[in-house]
Amino acid sequence: MLRIRFEDVESKLANVSCSIGFGEERAQLCARLFAETTCDGVYSHGVNRFARFVAMVRNGSVDPQAEPRVAARFGAMERWDGQRGPGNLNAYAAMARAIALSREHGIGCVAMANTNHWMRGGTYGWQAADAGVIGICWTNTMPNLPPWGGTEPMIGNNPLVIAVPRAKGHVVLDTAMSQFSYGALESYRRRGELLPVEGGFDREGMLTRDPGAIEQSQRLLPVGFWKGSGLAIVLDMVAAMTSLGNATHQIANDPLRETGLSQVFVAIDPRTLGDAERMDEIADGVVDSLHGTRASEAGNPVRYPGENTMRLREENRRLGLPVDEAVWEEIVAM
Amino acid sequence: MLRIRFEDVESKLANVSCSIGFGEERAQLCARLFAETTCDGVYSHGVNRFARFVAMVRNGSVDPQAEPRVAARFGAMERWDGQRGPGNLNAYAAMARAIALSREHGIGCVAMANTNHWMRGGTYGWQAADAGVIGICWTNTMPNLPPWGGTEPMIGNNPLVIAVPRAKGHVVLDTAMSQFSYGALESYRRRGELLPVEGGFDREGMLTRDPGAIEQSQRLLPVGFWKGSGLAIVLDMVAAMTSLGNATHQIANDPLRETGLSQVFVAIDPRTLGDAERMDEIADGVVDSLHGTRASEAGNPVRYPGENTMRLREENRRLGLPVDEAVWEEIVAM
Repeated sequence: MLRIRFEDVESKLANVSCSIGFGEERAQLCARLFAETTCDGVYSHGVNRFARFVAMVRNGSVDPQAEPRVAARFGAMERWDGQRGPGNLNAYAAMARAIALSREHGIGCVAMANTNHWMRGGTYGWQAADAGVIGICWTNTMPNLPPWGGTEPMIGNNPLVIAVPRAKGHVVLDTAMSQFSYGALESYRRRGELLPVEGGFDREGMLTRDPGAIEQSQRLLPVGFWKGSGLAIVLDMVAAMTSLGNATHQIANDPLRETGLSQVFVAIDPRTLGDAERMDEIADGVVDSLHGTRASEAGNPVRYPGENTMRLREENRRLGLPVDEAVWEEIVAM
Repeated sequence: MLRIRFEDVESKLANVSCSIGFGEERAQLCARLFAETTCDGVYSHGVNRFARFVAMVRNGSVDPQAEPRVAARFGAMERWDGQRGPGNLNAYAAMARAIALSREHGIGCVAMANTNHWMRGGTYGWQAADAGVIGICWTNTMPNLPPWGGTEPMIGNNPLVIAVPRAKGHVVLDTAMSQFSYGALESYRRRGELLPVEGGFDREGMLTRDPGAIEQSQRLLPVGFWKGSGLAIVLDMVAAMTSLGNATHQIANDPLRETGLSQVFVAIDPRTLGDAERMDEIADGVVDSLHGTRASEAGNPVRYPGENTMRLREENRRLGLPVDEAVWEEIVAM
């Protein structure tokens, strides 16, 4: 495992992005978002995923030059066409627009069709919270999860992000609708570990903690069984209907051709209603109640969503971003 | 089990509501919402819950005369004070206002503080879908669920509703953030059955399917372990911050004194952006993909959220609402 300075990672990724067709400013932003994702500890969607991202630019799934454009607007609601541009840049632009709409209308919403994988969803939650607004966004994905009562991947694990601004540290939830991702299953299997809780079904249809058995059956478990399955279904429907984009069942079930996604970005600027100073008190009150409650393991207090991110962000900035040697060599050779 | 005509249930509940201080029109609406909840098969929150609702009016937790009022407004966003009025009437008014805002701005949001238990959350989802808009709403609750990593009830199970309008039958998700409610645990225990999946921890901290053991420990399981816990936390924060109302940790942990809740109601009118006819096609496409996927039990096809509701609604309208004899006797005696 290497430790590489944030700035060095960022600059290398920006150079590669330029070389595959990004304009300079967009290459910089793209590189920063990847580096920040690794810095925040979401290793599966940061630098480790960059090579796959480059492959999708090269195979034509992602158009590095394409910029999202407004397709329709009405008041605080807009429909955008992502034009198959880079998913992270598209999502960043869509959330920026939702934030601007929320300043003007109290709440704002951008629904975007025809976009690509946004990499780490939490990025757009932190973006909203950094702007002082509540951010809610979600994406559909290729079919990678059987619905409850089904055996084939037919719904997406459709990550949902909810972010709350707070002076002492934003609260950011970033959660997919499967209990574990394929990336997580692979990590557990490689370490020879069982999952901490049941994560899917084996080929015989029995719930199991064996990551390899779930990879074989492709029967991941939705969060909360029927509940996460239902949530994934309605998130997909709302994204596709508001953006007039693809629903999950229309998206290619191939990680290198997963394109034409639909996403929703909502921002709420509660300061438009006044009394903003009370909001931090309310947020702090919730955080304090969590920190004060009895923990199931002594010395391991209950954490709020995003709390761990702040710790990892500081650590990785200080020590350098942790990057697998093989991953870095591949990027350096690009 | 009795079967009583919808109209007879409605009229009896309206009479009782009038007798405890509701104006006539509000008594009618209150009675209709309770009857519809039972008719739709959500027995825990319909007629079976009416006696508790009456008790909360009588003990002063619910003020039958109080009407919600706007506290602040800005564009498409409003903050309301529920003034401790009946939770179902307050929520119905708030969703109606969010729907009106969505017609004007594309999206609308009402955050309401100081309200009461809204009974069945799905009611306001069906309300939105019947109006042709997408409805998203959630409530906080009294502390009834330990956060992940904690052992005491400190967060709420904070039901979340997402509703999608569709000509052939709305898709309505209504899901709390605990895998099972206390009401569900009680039903399983009385029938002498184990839960179908693990629903919480016993007193020794082991996951269990024994409903009685979970009732004793009060350690219900959040949906998806850490995931549902995080979702419950951020839903609570957003509701309390936008409404300037109580967060869960500030709400009395007593089913008969659970008052001063915070709720959020969002409506999106996608027709404001045009091309509405395509939206039904998209929704139907998702439903068809679910019905067409391979089921894990032959003859038991995958269902969409709310599909079962339509079947029960028709059946209960036809046969009469199923009501426990003891429950009905208590109401008749009021």
